[in-house]
Amino acid sequence: MRNLTLAAALAAAILATTAPLPAHADEGMWRPSQMPQLAAQLKARGLQMDPAALSNLAGKPLDAVISLGGCTASFVSPEGLVVTNHHCGYGAIQYNSTPERDLLKDGFVAASFADELPADPNARIYVTQEISDVTAQVVEGLDGMDGKARFDAIDAREKALVAACEEPGGLRCNVYSFNGGLEYSLIRQLEIQDVRLVYAPPESIGKFGGDIDNFEWPRHTGDWSFLRAYVGKDGKPAPYAKDNVPFQPKSWLTVSQQPLQAGDYVMVAGYPGRTNRYRLASEVQDAIDWSHPESVAYFKDYLAEIERTTAGDKAAALKYASTVAGINNALKLYQGQLDGFAQMDDPVGMKRAREDALKQWLATRGEAGKAQVAALAALERELAAAEATRERDRWFPSVASGGLTGTAVSLYRNAIEQAKPDAERESGYQARDAARLEGRMKSMDKRYDASVDKALTKLRIERYLAQVPAASRVAELDAWLGIGPNDKSVADLDARLDALYAGSKLGDEAVRLQLLKADRATIEASDDPALRFAVQVMPALLRLEGEGEAREGRISALRPQFMQAMIDFNASQGRPVYPDANSSLRITFGTVRGYSPRDAVQMQPFTTLAGIVAKTTGEDPFITPQPMLDAIASGEGAQYRMAALGDVPVNFLSDVDTTGGNSGSPTLDAKGELVGLLFDGNYESLSADWIFNPDLTRSIHVDARYMRWVMDEVDHAERLLEEMGLPHD
Amino acid sequence: MRNLTLAAALAAAILATTAPLPAHADEGMWRPSQMPQLAAQLKARGLQMDPAALSNLAGKPLDAVISLGGCTASFVSPEGLVVTNHHCGYGAIQYNSTPERDLLKDGFVAASFADELPADPNARIYVTQEISDVTAQVVEGLDGMDGKARFDAIDAREKALVAACEEPGGLRCNVYSFNGGLEYSLIRQLEIQDVRLVYAPPESIGKFGGDIDNFEWPRHTGDWSFLRAYVGKDGKPAPYAKDNVPFQPKSWLTVSQQPLQAGDYVMVAGYPGRTNRYRLASEVQDAIDWSHPESVAYFKDYLAEIERTTAGDKAAALKYASTVAGINNALKLYQGQLDGFAQMDDPVGMKRAREDALKQWLATRGEAGKAQVAALAALERELAAAEATRERDRWFPSVASGGLTGTAVSLYRNAIEQAKPDAERESGYQARDAARLEGRMKSMDKRYDASVDKALTKLRIERYLAQVPAASRVAELDAWLGIGPNDKSVADLDARLDALYAGSKLGDEAVRLQLLKADRATIEASDDPALRFAVQVMPALLRLEGEGEAREGRISALRPQFMQAMIDFNASQGRPVYPDANSSLRITFGTVRGYSPRDAVQMQPFTTLAGIVAKTTGEDPFITPQPMLDAIASGEGAQYRMAALGDVPVNFLSDVDTTGGNSGSPTLDAKGELVGLLFDGNYESLSADWIFNPDLTRSIHVDARYMRWVMDEVDHAERLLEEMGLPHD
Repeated sequence: MRNLTLAAALAAAILATTAPLPAHADEGMWRPSQMPQLAAQLKARGLQMDPAALSNLAGKPLDAVISLGGCTASFVSPEGLVVTNHHCGYGAIQYNSTPERDLLKDGFVAASFADELPADPNARIYVTQEISDVTAQVVEGLDGMDGKARFDAIDAREKALVAACEEPGGLRCNVYSFNGGLEYSLIRQLEIQDVRLVYAPPESIGKFGGDIDNFEWPRHTGDWSFLRAYVGKDGKPAPYAKDNVPFQPKSWLTVSQQPLQAGDYVMVAGYPGRTNRYRLASEVQDAIDWSHPESVAYFKDYLAEIERTTAGDKAAALKYASTVAGINNALKLYQGQLDGFAQMDDPVGMKRAREDALKQWLATRGEAGKAQVAALAALERELAAAEATRERDRWFPSVASGGLTGTAVSLYRNAIEQAKPDAERESGYQARDAARLEGRMKSMDKRYDASVDKALTKLRIERYLAQVPAASRVAELDAWLGIGPNDKSVADLDARLDALYAGSKLGDEAVRLQLLKADRATIEASDDPALRFAVQVMPALLRLEGEGEAREGRISALRPQFMQAMIDFNASQGRPVYPDANSSLRITFGTVRGYSPRDAVQMQPFTTLAGIVAKTTGEDPFITPQPMLDAIASGEGAQYRMAALGDVPVNFLSDVDTTGGNSGSPTLDAKGELVGLLFDGNYESLSADWIFNPDLTRSIHVDARYMRWVMDEVDHAERLLEEMGLPHD
Repeated sequence: MRNLTLAAALAAAILATTAPLPAHADEGMWRPSQMPQLAAQLKARGLQMDPAALSNLAGKPLDAVISLGGCTASFVSPEGLVVTNHHCGYGAIQYNSTPERDLLKDGFVAASFADELPADPNARIYVTQEISDVTAQVVEGLDGMDGKARFDAIDAREKALVAACEEPGGLRCNVYSFNGGLEYSLIRQLEIQDVRLVYAPPESIGKFGGDIDNFEWPRHTGDWSFLRAYVGKDGKPAPYAKDNVPFQPKSWLTVSQQPLQAGDYVMVAGYPGRTNRYRLASEVQDAIDWSHPESVAYFKDYLAEIERTTAGDKAAALKYASTVAGINNALKLYQGQLDGFAQMDDPVGMKRAREDALKQWLATRGEAGKAQVAALAALERELAAAEATRERDRWFPSVASGGLTGTAVSLYRNAIEQAKPDAERESGYQARDAARLEGRMKSMDKRYDASVDKALTKLRIERYLAQVPAASRVAELDAWLGIGPNDKSVADLDARLDALYAGSKLGDEAVRLQLLKADRATIEASDDPALRFAVQVMPALLRLEGEGEAREGRISALRPQFMQAMIDFNASQGRPVYPDANSSLRITFGTVRGYSPRDAVQMQPFTTLAGIVAKTTGEDPFITPQPMLDAIASGEGAQYRMAALGDVPVNFLSDVDTTGGNSGSPTLDAKGELVGLLFDGNYESLSADWIFNPDLTRSIHVDARYMRWVMDEVDHAERLLEEMGLPHD
């Protein structure tokens, strides 16, 4: 499953830097505004609508494509019915499940609007309304500023743009940086706050194959769920209220009734989170040699610690269940990327060759070219400098994040930031963030157990001690640990951690909420040992943050030059360049297509109901509900079959270019009609976040015919089929 | 690898009983005499020669198809050049390898006749000369005899037929039973005793993929080697002598120069060892519930004991290397059969349904039908009775076989048998067997280490104690162990075994060879503890042997009736029946064809040189010689490429029906020309020894174009290409 939420957060935490390279003919997460440029290619692949229509955010199909914050979804009825993945609706299903009424296990079909169940109050639906180019406003007059000043200026301008754009009660704005800061967009989204659960198949369908099949093909997962957007009676976003009414979107997707076949055109519109396609060779090298192996080893130890400390403690195990699932997902992602790199013929060399080609071309471009070559060299130097302190920059902040120490640091930081005018506060501590911060402080209990967290903190401290060279050790943390910069261990570490966890009151929700209102002096005067830790290490955190921002500021002056050179170089060969994914709306297109993972093995692009029966063992995650087995055996729903297959298609492959965050994205056919939902990629696609291999990279979709077959023949969600204007038995 | 030698011997030792069921349209190991009956089917599949030619043992191609005793081979030149698998020529390569000149590792190409190397003196080439039906001579007058008398009569008649047929100096005869004793054939073969090694690729080509790829597809193994048959100057078989001359066969196969494609007709002629296609449902049940799981568990414990006892002892480990390889092969075979059964939808029920259909049909056939139904019921009773003592019949003889105890038993038995006239001696102890028995006594040292053997004997004794119910325990063995029939353990077992191994002199070759000439009284008077064991348990061995022979005699009166009923039943539906494999010459035909092992996965029928490069890791068994990598990289030998593949085909799949013993068989095209060598089956084919599934069962062949490419571009065996009349660069 490509659940952006955790994987991308981890990736962001772990990878400090950012950068670019040219596009294959077969890849691309395009900005909607680029579609007209691609008209010839779109037509060649089979698009049967005006490419210009794919640039129009205010019209069908794009205005029906919405974000759940970490997942994508789409409107499929005039009454605000939303379809997304099962794993994207998971929170809403889990929130409504109790031991007595286990919706995860049994599934749920609301019989009427009144039966639709409110999701977690934090659930949101974001409807993109406008994307405006604010590059000029952000970058004007930056030249000549040093790194920190440049960073701060960009930050302040972004915040000002957001503040001017947002409106209380339903409009949320964000500035997105494209191509490493070459361009900036202000994106305004409607923020719907009343989200309800309408329909989810049982987990045995929606999560069929579970972790075993995750990132694998062949696949047989019914990864869909249905939500509904509700608004106040005035039609404006409002928190949950019983008498809110269904939101009426301007557009909604039509579910295709045409048979999708191998070789057919498909496209996916959605919110891909993050890719690294334009990284420099040195950054790829660092990922292969250091940061990825480091992550894989850490994730394994992290999982082992959780397993050890929750053994025999069901309650603690449950609190960490979603963390474990997320880490497992990330582990497979990182290991998959390493495996992918290992399978490639010299990935670093590929990037290096492209940089060399770029430099050769720039050498023919006079002074402008010379300046770009110099910028590239300067960028290389910045990246090399960052590498010099990579161990410190990774492991010191990790000790001060997550669980008890992270909560203390957040509370102290909040007090520091609240003393500033709102516009000057650090992101995450502004007025607009207050509700979410409070939510996190409230829900901490659900994913925190002191003895588990203590073991994890110890693991991070040990990593810090083992990995960070003496020259870059952090005096404040060493002081807190009671050691000198050359000490590789802390004699009384267990006792220190015991005292920290035994003495702190931050495990208490009321205490946390009270501290959220406390001022800086109050926190600095506290004798809570977790707050003492936060106070002791905060100067170092702020110092390193400042250093990082200064570097980011310097890089923000260099990477855009590299990207501009790349774009110009590609343009000289007639190739448009798409920016790396940044959670903004993108379109990717291609065809339904299998692949050959190795000599003499061919993956076919469709799986079947017969394949579900063959995989079913009766043991989790390969359980199939008996009514479904009966429906398959009796051949019900023959109208959903695909002639070439002689069976109902379950999942299918395409060569569209997607990543985490695309989960739940509508898969559209040549006419822009819904033929499935994107929910995963094959194992070989994991390394495509860095280097796209058109022979091996495949996206995995659930086929709309399978959705309809289950809804019609097994789950009896006829009400929804009718709402979508679809026939049923 | 389908090496018959060990796997079939183990299977024969483990499975005490024998039986039948009707043929699919897509399966069949046909007797050459059946080919004209199959003319329509052969033509439909694409055969472009007269089917009658495939019945003619004295003409091309069949008289070029020869046996190596456990493997198949074929003549490919008028000078007695023989091609077979690398794993079939393995003994000859190993025999000529030394640490200084490691032919296994480096490969070997004889530059001239004079450079060809003599194989192990036990190596043989058998050329089938005549197959005559001797059913009447074997079965005449058997009616009314009781089980033991019937067994003895058949045994005596077979021996008499063999004795009358064989001629010293080169003609060997055997009686083969078909369809459970419904028919008997006397087969006369020329026995060529001077076999020489001509060419073998390095193991990195010939065994590429090793145990990991064994029984797997996709496959990239260059599993061929070339031998040559030599005879005396008079043209008659003779032991090795320097001035022997190449044998001149009447026929030899032509190597095809036509491009073989997917869907093309292919056939394989060879000597398949043993199948169980006509077993009754109860026998399949027994295999699934008891005998196979028992074998798998035993093989695992056996391997663990060898690993434990040879740890740190390189010399001992080397002695057991081939045993370990063989047991691993058998373990994969048995586990694969169990996996195959588990994947089938009720294999026992399938057999039962066919027996029920047969019975229904027989019910319409009057008195004759009634008699056959009664015979089937009687057969079922015999099999049920055999099941009642299956633990004893398996584990008691195992204690008295193999290693030290087995050698003692063989020596004592030999002395007993030598006292009888030759014609009455037990098979294996007749004059014609003397040389092989002596050879085994000589070569024992190469595969025997006392401390390892002691652990294995202990393992077998423990199995006997744990598995055999008190009611069927063997008093003689219990007495030797010093326990009563209800004792489940032997307090001083280690001490007893220590005394046995410390006291016996049978580890000494001279002692064994001397005892091979000793008479019964001498052995009975010996105080060698291993011989004391043999003398003590021999009465039980002979008693159980007699009981087994009596049962076999009774079954030999019943199973032919069942098979006759099967044949009649199938004939009534226009379907010919082939007999189970019995190491006699058979032909199987089909097409080059891939398969789908699971939903959405398609195995293509050809692998490529590019696939070798992709699999090459540089670590055994995935090493590729640098000259070969260079030849691939430079695209040498483009004339061997297959257009549809754009590469040289390496291995290919077909749906022909083969099993262990078929290794090395020539794969022939529609014109009877050589297009490859059969060397293995896919994992899904393992259970085909019992139930053939035409969707999943595939044979694996090495493509003659790959052989020629390696010979031409890498190993430079141009002399042989010329001898086979083939062009080269």
